[in-house]
Amino acid sequence: MNNEQVLEHLISKITAPDQEVAAETSAHVDSLTKPPGSLGKLEELVIRLAGMTGNARPRFDHRAVIVMAADHGVVEEGISAFPAEVTPQMVLNFLAGGAAVNVLARHAGADVICVDIGVNADLEHPDLLSRKIRKGTANMARGAAMTRDEAVSAILAGAEVVSAEVAKGTQLFVTGEMGIGNTTASAAVMSALTGVAPAAAVGRGTGIDDAGLQRKAAVVSRALSVNAPNPEDALDVLCKVGGLEIAGLTGVILAAAAHRCPVVVDGFISTAAALVSRQLAPLSTAYMIASHTSHENGHGALLRELDLKAMLDLDMRLGEGTGGVLSLHLIDAACLILNEMATFASAGVSDGVSHASDSAASVDSSLQGESSR
Amino acid sequence: MNNEQVLEHLISKITAPDQEVAAETSAHVDSLTKPPGSLGKLEELVIRLAGMTGNARPRFDHRAVIVMAADHGVVEEGISAFPAEVTPQMVLNFLAGGAAVNVLARHAGADVICVDIGVNADLEHPDLLSRKIRKGTANMARGAAMTRDEAVSAILAGAEVVSAEVAKGTQLFVTGEMGIGNTTASAAVMSALTGVAPAAAVGRGTGIDDAGLQRKAAVVSRALSVNAPNPEDALDVLCKVGGLEIAGLTGVILAAAAHRCPVVVDGFISTAAALVSRQLAPLSTAYMIASHTSHENGHGALLRELDLKAMLDLDMRLGEGTGGVLSLHLIDAACLILNEMATFASAGVSDGVSHASDSAASVDSSLQGESSR
Repeated sequence: MNNEQVLEHLISKITAPDQEVAAETSAHVDSLTKPPGSLGKLEELVIRLAGMTGNARPRFDHRAVIVMAADHGVVEEGISAFPAEVTPQMVLNFLAGGAAVNVLARHAGADVICVDIGVNADLEHPDLLSRKIRKGTANMARGAAMTRDEAVSAILAGAEVVSAEVAKGTQLFVTGEMGIGNTTASAAVMSALTGVAPAAAVGRGTGIDDAGLQRKAAVVSRALSVNAPNPEDALDVLCKVGGLEIAGLTGVILAAAAHRCPVVVDGFISTAAALVSRQLAPLSTAYMIASHTSHENGHGALLRELDLKAMLDLDMRLGEGTGGVLSLHLIDAACLILNEMATFASAGVSDGVSHASDSAASVDSSLQGESSR
Repeated sequence: MNNEQVLEHLISKITAPDQEVAAETSAHVDSLTKPPGSLGKLEELVIRLAGMTGNARPRFDHRAVIVMAADHGVVEEGISAFPAEVTPQMVLNFLAGGAAVNVLARHAGADVICVDIGVNADLEHPDLLSRKIRKGTANMARGAAMTRDEAVSAILAGAEVVSAEVAKGTQLFVTGEMGIGNTTASAAVMSALTGVAPAAAVGRGTGIDDAGLQRKAAVVSRALSVNAPNPEDALDVLCKVGGLEIAGLTGVILAAAAHRCPVVVDGFISTAAALVSRQLAPLSTAYMIASHTSHENGHGALLRELDLKAMLDLDMRLGEGTGGVLSLHLIDAACLILNEMATFASAGVSDGVSHASDSAASVDSSLQGESSR
């Protein structure tokens, strides 16, 4: 099989969640001592998790954030507040455990898997997964960012990282990334696939000023007009105006879905990869969990486009997977509720006005300790 | 001293946060390996926590959610989806460890302190703090919910619970509550203190239908017209249209602030108590941390009124302190970032475009392992 056939095979393995298991969990959620629906998104989440995994009482003891790092030729257009050298520097920071995602992943009990999918530097480290497709993309403002085969290779590299982790017992994935210039590529992907104007898709990234923001929108416009990516062909969009980490994360999402593992989507770059994933495999959205609404301009619209609802509202704009790993606490909380909360029956609590006369009796019996656990 | 004088004394002990310590923490936050401000509300939070506690590297190993339980005479007007018997039943559920707040507090390492501040049942349990002021309020639609002295006594009872916990080493508090009918009382307090119309202040609580919602707004209107609470006098509002748990939580917030302990404000009822606290002691707002935006109708407006920004967006409407304890993970994360993240200098990462030429050298040195930790 050639690379595109391997990708097609991967996509063909993605199936819909198990609605029977989800319904079983939903019924249990409604028996717990709280007004129906009152735990809001946590209830929806745990029901979805049951359907994804086929386990009515899901739990995720082993989880990993996959941090895909790559460089972007488009930085020569002056669209970032930080120099390209920061990409390899931050990879080393991830490997040394000192970046924000390391701190937050340790706190949430997640492994950090750092992947060099296309950094423009020679990096070696025992903990680094070297899956370099090329040393950064070409400048998309002047031509295609990469070849179609490179984009597919990056997707497959991401998918293989996930498959290897699944083989080791990892049950849930978080997307993360590092790449100076990657909000520009993500905005171009968003604009190409959704038709949103570049000015509405671009944001301040790591912190550019007003003039930089205008330049960034102009660069995205130029990249789209120079490359004329076909909006019906996500791989064409990805190779012409995307990035290697966006492609790698697309592979992470598709492979997670194929393995029936939930995949937590972090911020703007990760959500651009989710958009590409949906176009390649519509069923993959059933395995996506939105974590936070990034401060980056286009992120809210991108989440709405994917019909994903974020749980955290922290005005973060750091990337790396930081919002994703923070949301693991909420995923754990949702799973614990399922396993540890009392039911109306077990606790002797009235489940609504219709049983009001019974409930006085159950207070009395509760007071005598019959309902204590 | 009479009770009101004791309350005045408590309020007089509340001082502004330490701006010097906050500035020290702010400078450290800006030295960490991330774009300035990119961790959004987590950065603002940890800087505020430093100012509150006077500790430039705050951490909160001992924390407690104070769950105040009370009944409401106004339930006889048919404003709740659940019968009043559920209040004592849920208190027993808290004490047995089976309610949502118990599950989420265990997960977040917080103690659950359950206080009977005015349940309309005789409750005894070794772990229950019995601070009953009266067996539920009177029906505010027909007259004052309680006397002014009862409201002040409830505030002082809440304050004493906090002082006792501080003496045992508790460093941070979360507000929680249980009381069938208490969203109606909270809406009345909100309406009286802010001038918002009852129809905009009421919500569906535990799940009333459209007719119930209209009835609830009418009941709040009637309570306000029957009692004519003075909006300039928060104690007058509290005793006429408030509730015993709202008063108790006001005491929790004021005492936490007086002890320079952060206090995490949960949902609608807790935020009504925060509004009363601000009117009694404007400086107390500096110690409040908003946790989540509740699905309850008036909560967003109440948070904006207090200039508090929620971190979680989970459409929850359960109360008990559930949103508050969930946010402890974010507070811990913010503190860990301060202690565990590398600085630009320690990691050899360029902190902006101005040092671009230096940074190539630092990549090289990093690659040789000089920056590893």
